[in-house]
Amino acid sequence: MPALPDQAYMARALELARKGLYSTHPNPRVGCVIVRDGRIVGEGWHARAGEPHAEVHALRQAGDKAKGATAYVTLEPCSHHGRTPPCADALVNAGVARVVAAMQDPNPQVSGRGLQRLADAGIAVQSGMLEAEARALNAGFIKRMEKGLPFVRVKLAMSLDGRTAMASGESQWITGPAARAAVQRLRARASVVLTGADTVLADQARLTVRPDELGLNAELTALALMRPPLRVLVDGRLRVPLSAPFFQAGPALVATCAAASARDRFLEDGHELLAVPGSNGHVDLNRLLVELAARGANEVLVEAGPRLAGAFARLGLVDEYQLFVAPKFLGSSARPLLDLPLVRMAEAKELKITDIRAVGDDWRITAVPL
Amino acid sequence: MPALPDQAYMARALELARKGLYSTHPNPRVGCVIVRDGRIVGEGWHARAGEPHAEVHALRQAGDKAKGATAYVTLEPCSHHGRTPPCADALVNAGVARVVAAMQDPNPQVSGRGLQRLADAGIAVQSGMLEAEARALNAGFIKRMEKGLPFVRVKLAMSLDGRTAMASGESQWITGPAARAAVQRLRARASVVLTGADTVLADQARLTVRPDELGLNAELTALALMRPPLRVLVDGRLRVPLSAPFFQAGPALVATCAAASARDRFLEDGHELLAVPGSNGHVDLNRLLVELAARGANEVLVEAGPRLAGAFARLGLVDEYQLFVAPKFLGSSARPLLDLPLVRMAEAKELKITDIRAVGDDWRITAVPL
Repeated sequence: MPALPDQAYMARALELARKGLYSTHPNPRVGCVIVRDGRIVGEGWHARAGEPHAEVHALRQAGDKAKGATAYVTLEPCSHHGRTPPCADALVNAGVARVVAAMQDPNPQVSGRGLQRLADAGIAVQSGMLEAEARALNAGFIKRMEKGLPFVRVKLAMSLDGRTAMASGESQWITGPAARAAVQRLRARASVVLTGADTVLADQARLTVRPDELGLNAELTALALMRPPLRVLVDGRLRVPLSAPFFQAGPALVATCAAASARDRFLEDGHELLAVPGSNGHVDLNRLLVELAARGANEVLVEAGPRLAGAFARLGLVDEYQLFVAPKFLGSSARPLLDLPLVRMAEAKELKITDIRAVGDDWRITAVPL
Repeated sequence: MPALPDQAYMARALELARKGLYSTHPNPRVGCVIVRDGRIVGEGWHARAGEPHAEVHALRQAGDKAKGATAYVTLEPCSHHGRTPPCADALVNAGVARVVAAMQDPNPQVSGRGLQRLADAGIAVQSGMLEAEARALNAGFIKRMEKGLPFVRVKLAMSLDGRTAMASGESQWITGPAARAAVQRLRARASVVLTGADTVLADQARLTVRPDELGLNAELTALALMRPPLRVLVDGRLRVPLSAPFFQAGPALVATCAAASARDRFLEDGHELLAVPGSNGHVDLNRLLVELAARGANEVLVEAGPRLAGAFARLGLVDEYQLFVAPKFLGSSARPLLDLPLVRMAEAKELKITDIRAVGDDWRITAVPL
């Protein structure tokens, strides 16, 4: 069997890495392919924090065939002892001849050390292959490592004329089942699903991951459920009662700038109260994001009403918008997409639309701030 | 050369017909291909009203080779004496053996007569090949023939959050040059470009076709300029002065329900004043469309502000929306897409999105009311 170009094996390693989309956090998604004499002899991907890394799975499968082989890995092999031993050592011990990484470790403190350890052991090393794809897959992990902040994705469902609900608040089911399944998968891949008191009070929102709506196979569904996202409620004035469906649906984190004296009451019900500085009853969202990153949150999905989502937009905290657009007009009295009062055209928030695709009868637009 | 399937020749005939996109109105766009022994021996398309029909061009090119040939034509050949003699007769006289039409004449009064005349002369006739494509090409002509109304296309330029301008009215250049060229082509293909007093007063709009912005080749540009759309201003209360750039840019039709005593003043400046019934200073738009159809308008392009475009939407007069979407948020204080006050979700205007495509940095969404 003729050898394929290096890129083909790296593409396969990325495909494997994507299997961890719903379960690796706080770890990154990583895939590994081991190739000898043009044949894939081992494959692996990281499934969950605390379990073996991708390289270990692939080396186990390759066994003796790893000797003299090339290992393709989507992220620089680790060189430190975490919950598992360093993968760089495992590759050296297995006698691998060459290691190709898609990207270096994004943590500037350790970046390059894993590759250096391999090189020191006489292994040929290379980095940067399909790097853009690898970075996109772990945008949250990378941002957290590089900036101490999570990747913030804001999901909004709107009509074609940019409205989210009627003036009365009537809003359920703007978009169809395919769009709702896509939202479920956005929740499942996130470390944190974040919402506000308005949404929880008005829509009785629970923001849980519902396995039957994910549209994933049994393996990925099971993995997603083992590691559901932390549900975070921003409730500056502690307006949401503990009897709300949101709290009944499972443990949650409440971020508030109200008196911390309520802490015990939330603890008793299995929830955590996080005191965050704020003003006028509004939680300092930047401080909250720093705190969430410190707790290992790679990706935060914001599913909130116009006020909270608008606040993220105003503060420039958004990395990506996911707009689900229903093919209908809700009209000029309906509620706006974002509470974002701008006066002059020069203040307009410029975006780049990176993807538009049909989702059932609806459309999904991915846009990133410029 | 082996004969191609019938559909291939009809597809070529449709391609030829599309060359008349910007110039045939009030006539339909029609193309014709004459094939003998698997070879195309004649091609033609209708360019302008008063000039020869597609069949005549194709027969002239085919000459003697039309004898025993098959003629593919995108619309049933005419059987009546208009400004040119009947094409059915010309096909009979040329000795054509078979005629394939994409669709019958949409005028219920004459539909089928052209094919009948051919059949009576012993010619094999067939109709309905690639009919959907043929109907789409002449949706305006067909609607006018069948319903006595033009096809109404509403063009709107909006931000991703569904806004058309800042609250102050600041709005110029929401979308980029590629979108503006696309709008120029929408104007050029229309029989009528219709706007309202708000737009003409606020934006100093002229709504002309500008040859250098069309992005068409020299032949089509020349044809488009020979038959520019009629510019129609809906101005119920005659608010727009004759000194406005709109009137300075050339002759226009003003539809009003104000006193007709102003007629002479407009006539002197080369414009026509059309009295249309109305109430509260608002022109009856349905009556206006009937009048425009009676004057031969196939496609009406509405380029207006939220109030007039919203009125068309509320009255259910819109056949197609062309939404040009700029990748930016103008915010919640900005002006709505349509002045369309709805209270309950059940009143939402349901649409079907039939096309989304990139136009420069902007996106163009085609949506039709359900």
